[in-house]
Amino acid sequence: MPALERWVYSFGGGRADGSAAMRDILGGKGAGLAEMANLGLPVPPGFTISAKLCIAYLEHGTFPDELREEVDRHLKQLERTSKKRFGDAGNPLLVSVRSGAAVSMPGMMETILNLGLTDETVQGLLAGSNNPRFAYDSYRRFVQMYGDVVFDLGKGPFDEVLEEYKRRRKVERDIDLPPDDLKALVREFKAIIQAKSGLPFPEDPVAQLWGAIAAVFKSWRTRRAADYRRVNGIPDDLGTAVNVVAMVYGNMGDDSGTGVAFTRDCRSGEPDLNGDVLTNAQGEDVVSGARTPEPIGKLKRGKLAKVYQDLERMAAKLERHFRDVQDIEFTFERGRVFMLQTRRAQRTGLAAVRIAVDMVAEGLITEDEAVQRVPPQDLDQVFHPMVDPRSPVTLVAKGLPASPGAAVGEVVFDADEAEALAKRGRNVILVRPETSPEDFHGIVAARAVLTARGGMTSHAAIVARGMGKTCVVGAKDIEVDPQQGRFRANGRVVKKGQVLTVDGTTGRILLGAAKLVQPKLGAHYAKLMSWADQRRRLGVRANADTPADAKRGRAFGAEGIGLCRTEHMFFEGDRITAMREMIVAPDEAGRRRALAQLLPMQRADFEGLFEAMSPYPVTIRLLDPPLHEFLPHTREEVATLARAMKLPAVRLERLVASLVEANPMLGHRGCRLGITYPEITEMQARAIFEAACRVVSRGQKVTVEVMIPLVALVEELRRQTEIVRRVAREVFQAEGRAVPYLVGTMIELPRAALTADEIARDAEFFSFGTNDLTQTTFGLSRDDAGRFLPFYVEHGILKDDPFQVLDQEGVGKLMTLAVRLGRSTRSDLKIGICGEHGGEPASVKFCHHAGMNYVSCSPFRVPIARLAAAQAALEEQGVINRTRATV
Amino acid sequence: MPALERWVYSFGGGRADGSAAMRDILGGKGAGLAEMANLGLPVPPGFTISAKLCIAYLEHGTFPDELREEVDRHLKQLERTSKKRFGDAGNPLLVSVRSGAAVSMPGMMETILNLGLTDETVQGLLAGSNNPRFAYDSYRRFVQMYGDVVFDLGKGPFDEVLEEYKRRRKVERDIDLPPDDLKALVREFKAIIQAKSGLPFPEDPVAQLWGAIAAVFKSWRTRRAADYRRVNGIPDDLGTAVNVVAMVYGNMGDDSGTGVAFTRDCRSGEPDLNGDVLTNAQGEDVVSGARTPEPIGKLKRGKLAKVYQDLERMAAKLERHFRDVQDIEFTFERGRVFMLQTRRAQRTGLAAVRIAVDMVAEGLITEDEAVQRVPPQDLDQVFHPMVDPRSPVTLVAKGLPASPGAAVGEVVFDADEAEALAKRGRNVILVRPETSPEDFHGIVAARAVLTARGGMTSHAAIVARGMGKTCVVGAKDIEVDPQQGRFRANGRVVKKGQVLTVDGTTGRILLGAAKLVQPKLGAHYAKLMSWADQRRRLGVRANADTPADAKRGRAFGAEGIGLCRTEHMFFEGDRITAMREMIVAPDEAGRRRALAQLLPMQRADFEGLFEAMSPYPVTIRLLDPPLHEFLPHTREEVATLARAMKLPAVRLERLVASLVEANPMLGHRGCRLGITYPEITEMQARAIFEAACRVVSRGQKVTVEVMIPLVALVEELRRQTEIVRRVAREVFQAEGRAVPYLVGTMIELPRAALTADEIARDAEFFSFGTNDLTQTTFGLSRDDAGRFLPFYVEHGILKDDPFQVLDQEGVGKLMTLAVRLGRSTRSDLKIGICGEHGGEPASVKFCHHAGMNYVSCSPFRVPIARLAAAQAALEEQGVINRTRATV
Repeated sequence: MPALERWVYSFGGGRADGSAAMRDILGGKGAGLAEMANLGLPVPPGFTISAKLCIAYLEHGTFPDELREEVDRHLKQLERTSKKRFGDAGNPLLVSVRSGAAVSMPGMMETILNLGLTDETVQGLLAGSNNPRFAYDSYRRFVQMYGDVVFDLGKGPFDEVLEEYKRRRKVERDIDLPPDDLKALVREFKAIIQAKSGLPFPEDPVAQLWGAIAAVFKSWRTRRAADYRRVNGIPDDLGTAVNVVAMVYGNMGDDSGTGVAFTRDCRSGEPDLNGDVLTNAQGEDVVSGARTPEPIGKLKRGKLAKVYQDLERMAAKLERHFRDVQDIEFTFERGRVFMLQTRRAQRTGLAAVRIAVDMVAEGLITEDEAVQRVPPQDLDQVFHPMVDPRSPVTLVAKGLPASPGAAVGEVVFDADEAEALAKRGRNVILVRPETSPEDFHGIVAARAVLTARGGMTSHAAIVARGMGKTCVVGAKDIEVDPQQGRFRANGRVVKKGQVLTVDGTTGRILLGAAKLVQPKLGAHYAKLMSWADQRRRLGVRANADTPADAKRGRAFGAEGIGLCRTEHMFFEGDRITAMREMIVAPDEAGRRRALAQLLPMQRADFEGLFEAMSPYPVTIRLLDPPLHEFLPHTREEVATLARAMKLPAVRLERLVASLVEANPMLGHRGCRLGITYPEITEMQARAIFEAACRVVSRGQKVTVEVMIPLVALVEELRRQTEIVRRVAREVFQAEGRAVPYLVGTMIELPRAALTADEIARDAEFFSFGTNDLTQTTFGLSRDDAGRFLPFYVEHGILKDDPFQVLDQEGVGKLMTLAVRLGRSTRSDLKIGICGEHGGEPASVKFCHHAGMNYVSCSPFRVPIARLAAAQAALEEQGVINRTRATV
Repeated sequence: MPALERWVYSFGGGRADGSAAMRDILGGKGAGLAEMANLGLPVPPGFTISAKLCIAYLEHGTFPDELREEVDRHLKQLERTSKKRFGDAGNPLLVSVRSGAAVSMPGMMETILNLGLTDETVQGLLAGSNNPRFAYDSYRRFVQMYGDVVFDLGKGPFDEVLEEYKRRRKVERDIDLPPDDLKALVREFKAIIQAKSGLPFPEDPVAQLWGAIAAVFKSWRTRRAADYRRVNGIPDDLGTAVNVVAMVYGNMGDDSGTGVAFTRDCRSGEPDLNGDVLTNAQGEDVVSGARTPEPIGKLKRGKLAKVYQDLERMAAKLERHFRDVQDIEFTFERGRVFMLQTRRAQRTGLAAVRIAVDMVAEGLITEDEAVQRVPPQDLDQVFHPMVDPRSPVTLVAKGLPASPGAAVGEVVFDADEAEALAKRGRNVILVRPETSPEDFHGIVAARAVLTARGGMTSHAAIVARGMGKTCVVGAKDIEVDPQQGRFRANGRVVKKGQVLTVDGTTGRILLGAAKLVQPKLGAHYAKLMSWADQRRRLGVRANADTPADAKRGRAFGAEGIGLCRTEHMFFEGDRITAMREMIVAPDEAGRRRALAQLLPMQRADFEGLFEAMSPYPVTIRLLDPPLHEFLPHTREEVATLARAMKLPAVRLERLVASLVEANPMLGHRGCRLGITYPEITEMQARAIFEAACRVVSRGQKVTVEVMIPLVALVEELRRQTEIVRRVAREVFQAEGRAVPYLVGTMIELPRAALTADEIARDAEFFSFGTNDLTQTTFGLSRDDAGRFLPFYVEHGILKDDPFQVLDQEGVGKLMTLAVRLGRSTRSDLKIGICGEHGGEPASVKFCHHAGMNYVSCSPFRVPIARLAAAQAALEEQGVINRTRATV
């Protein structure tokens, strides 16, 4: 029989038919058991039925003939290895029958324990354990589970009877029923099965086994399993394997127990065996919470020191073997340790970094591997305080985790109030239906921002992420009433001044002050990043609007500014006044007067930026948002402004109304402003070049990149570029010096990408604005997508939110086209990306493979981008992560 | 000397060096004169200096040496032909020096008349004309023109002196000055020239000529000429020719005169010579409006009958020669007719049709040529009343000509009021800041619609165009105040009830009731369209939402419905109530109850459509707009609705607020509604298939095409298609019959176009929604573009409004890609277009060349599309329009 047609694989007794490499056939659990058996570790003997059989069985409803024969053979072998026999009243073989797919689907499929128990064999268990309650409780559980799963009767009918017994005995817990009741329950349960199914409960262990195998296979197709696969993108045709394993018992006395261990600390990464253990207990007891487990370290001293030493030795062996930290399940029966499962341990970002770097030092893995080991996204956790996972919390609502970290503060609903309170040293949480640029100072002042509306790239999300400030957006169960100073959420009312915790890493809003923990960065992180930097080809820049942002970006390793949004400079103090004067000016002369006031302020901003980033390049995007964003919108605010500006309120109202746009995202913004009001472009260009000259005159190097936003037509770019170059000439002549600069454009509209060959004739660089490019390519407003995008992701219509993870199939196709077209007319075209995707690992890898020169992202995501870029370079070189098939 | 290096071309005396084919060298005017000379028609002799010299001269500032020699030679020839001599005091040769580019640029460049006059030669003019005022006025004009144009002194200094003379003599008109004053003015003008330029006025005619030639060349580069070229897309390197023509005079007595003639009537197309003539006058007199010209027919009888006969004969000869209607300028001097210019005559759509068909009957042109002769867009005029071009009008403002025709009515600002007044038989003009679907009934009731905001594809524009109703949108000088019942425009206030005329063909808003004229359609039109239909390959369908639309579409020759917008069915009467009940329903059950009310109404609508269009296919688009379009928005309206729906106002307000979108165009609409509320898709599918079964049961053929809107992801289409197909099966089973149907999708988002290969696996047809595709590809909201798009078109940043003329370079590139990708996975994919571009000739031709199966447009544009499609087919076959190079 050729190997591929083999259906059953035994393990135990120091050897196994399979191995960790056979995950597709054996599933994760089966492969782990096989590998451990091969390593000589003590696993209870058993066998695994191939996952390849699952789909075939589900389609035909029958097993191949040769399977029966194979299972019989492996069952015989199991009896030999375990020295027990199926149906033997004296020394009965009992087994567990468990599912186990190649990809972990926790709790989604079925498990049956204690299979092999019958009225006869229970006597053997009784004799062996000397514990009638244990024996009959095991029997009762088995029959109950079998009726539920194999006879498909559900839990209901059995629970009813069980509850009645408990009521009658006035006990709370199943285990408190006397053995006679448990024995009586077995009889009642069997009667229920007979009555409901018309079939007797099988008293033959082999018949029991076949029923259980079929039921486990069938559980692949339950609704919840199918849903889980759809949401997690697991193929439907994978199937599950079936593991038949001899039972071992951790509840045979004080020298028995069960537990879970990690070969290193998965929160901190410290190289210590750790985990939880319960003596005289079974796995179920841990899960049910009936007893609180103890730290595994307690075993070190005392009677069970030998168990601890065995575990420690086995853990070290597994880690060396798999070359990664393992998450182990074990049981010890009368002092003898059995390994029940091993798999790659989940870990925090902090732990991932330390483990990878330590393992290089230990000679377990190479530097290349260490760089590939750490999921870049996990670095996000490394820099932010987190809600202590062990502290109790009260969930108010959930939203989108827009900017990671956690913060505690009192609720305010107004940006001015946030600022006022923050100045008095109070910690505030700014809660808004959504934010606009007018809330900017409030966001600056707050510890965290919470909005009811908006998606991952809404205003609040982008601004907060840029500052590394905790933010949750699109919390759609929240109804904010700023006038009343309160919000409603799921039946609860939270008022101004109440204390909340916002968890931007998970999107949770918690009542009161949760306990926060601050991760510590150190030498491990520095070493890993230095390895990453040696390997990456892609440049990494920061999106930064202020010198503080710029410095933070450099601290995180940015090599320039890829996006400075100049409009953020127009909201502070006097500036908004001058900006508004420009907007209300009736003619060009009036606009020029107002712009003249803005010029020195903007120039000073640029000086600060150039100094902070010298000698790296600074990309400055010219004014982008529509002008109405700078004006107030409520009647009262307009009236106040009119008084301040000494204008008739009616005139200002009319102006505000005339600037309202049906779809501001697609409106009069970006270079369209600079085309219709060239004096704005002139002022900004002048501020840029004058600032550059001043900084250079102080002996610092400046590299300027002027970026024209929202270009759809090459002619737009041409005209704006003409203005910028003319002003540059004028300034350089006046200042008597020249500063190197480039003029380029955002590629953020499909039309720009489609005509990139034409556009590249006039652009010295491209920077993909993937936020807007995603909006226009999908026809999807990031501010409104909250109404259906989460539904799309939940229901598998979209794999990821395209504002978080670049849509490579659609948006990416346009980008690849634009790169190719752009370089076809300008071979040395510099190409970057400055959308929010510039800090998302999969998107960074896409940018690497698309041949871009750099990515730019918010300062806090710079390390993520550096690591992802290094991984992309390693992948390209074919350096694969040589972790042994991890189970 | 090779032909190409020749610079000067003579004409006159029955022959010419050039011909009509040499338009690029001779310009339009020069080519016309040469061709007429060759035909033996009487033209004043002269010569043309090549336009090829223009740019070279402008770049180097000097003429090639051989030019002087060439001009001298041709001048000698001119003296011989004209039997006059330059500088001859007895019989002086006087010439006009005129510009003339290959493309007409009316009034943009310079002309100098009467060149050759000096103190000496004016005596000859005096003697020849016996009219001192004429002679000195000619001289005065020449010196003045020369000072302005050649010495570049502007009109100012000369006008000042002239005004002073007129004040002194107390006369209004130049011509009323006595000859002595005119003589004195010549002296003063010469003194001004000497004083301002430091150079004497040249008393040598040859020197005068060279100055004039240089000045005419230079006028190619004036600001206004450059602007005109930019706006009209005329290349800057074309250059102008210079025509030097012997002067002839229409003001030498009652046997002299000047005029303009058309070889056929260019308003009606009737085959009659017509035009205007002034006796004893020069061209300038016609232009200045000093005297009112008479119809040319008046010459038929009386002393000038011979002149008329000559003109008639020459006109016929020109028409036969050029094979098209000509627009002629002529002068007769003492009974002798001279032709001064001939060019292709502009004509109305009505005339174009009749002329083309008549010319086929006359054997002048072929049917193919007739089809190619009529500009499809001109058919737009054929079906609509027009403002009589001769009636006086008062312009209030201008907007975009969104839907052609003209209408008179009283102003109303509210849709309900429009409906109420219209029911009482009044003609109303609905004036709104902009319209929304809630105004639909008002648009139906009004004679015309006028909006202050919105572009060519705004709601008002599309709806009105679909009904063939006059509409002007984006009249940005208008400020509408519906509350006060008035609008302001350019300092004027127009109140409710005042009468306006809206001219949708030109975009004009006129005060009061202008005189309207109704074009008559007839056999000519029918014949032309039958020729077009025989030649086109592209199918033409109508966009139609109602049986009335459908019937109108068929009357215009539509072969199916390419777009039925089902949402328009939800605004009438009870339907909006049921629709709103659906929206406010708290759960699916509530939505289903409300939808059940809508089902019979929608089914009845579809029955009507299917019957009206049988046996042609009907494409039904499922619900597209966001739900908030069905709800009121002001506080008062919401309160009223809440009372009507027996809901707490607060709840309804909250709901309305929660549905507000930042960018509704990119929001929760299209198939996104059907995905989140599948019950809507189900109801619509049921209504469609039940209606189809009923119509089939009455013996009529029905072909259904169900169209899923706003698809970005193939998975969206797949899920919606599943629902449609399931409901079809259910209905067919219940009804006991099946109806043929297709399920396809709109391609209206860049992502759909980019992934068209995937989408075509699940789509049986594509229909390009080029309105939304243009919006998303450009990142341009059609509702907001009014603020800068007109600026873009005026300043040549965009050649055309991309919502009117398909942007082939950007949007078209995506479409071509989608056609190729779509057919790569489904070779028989049916592809059409249903955006507004489906009725725009250049876009229709693009669709033909892109290999689409059909275009669909509003019923009134169906004939345009049919004709454009025929022209595209002829172009493809290489059948070119054999009109002789038209000048």
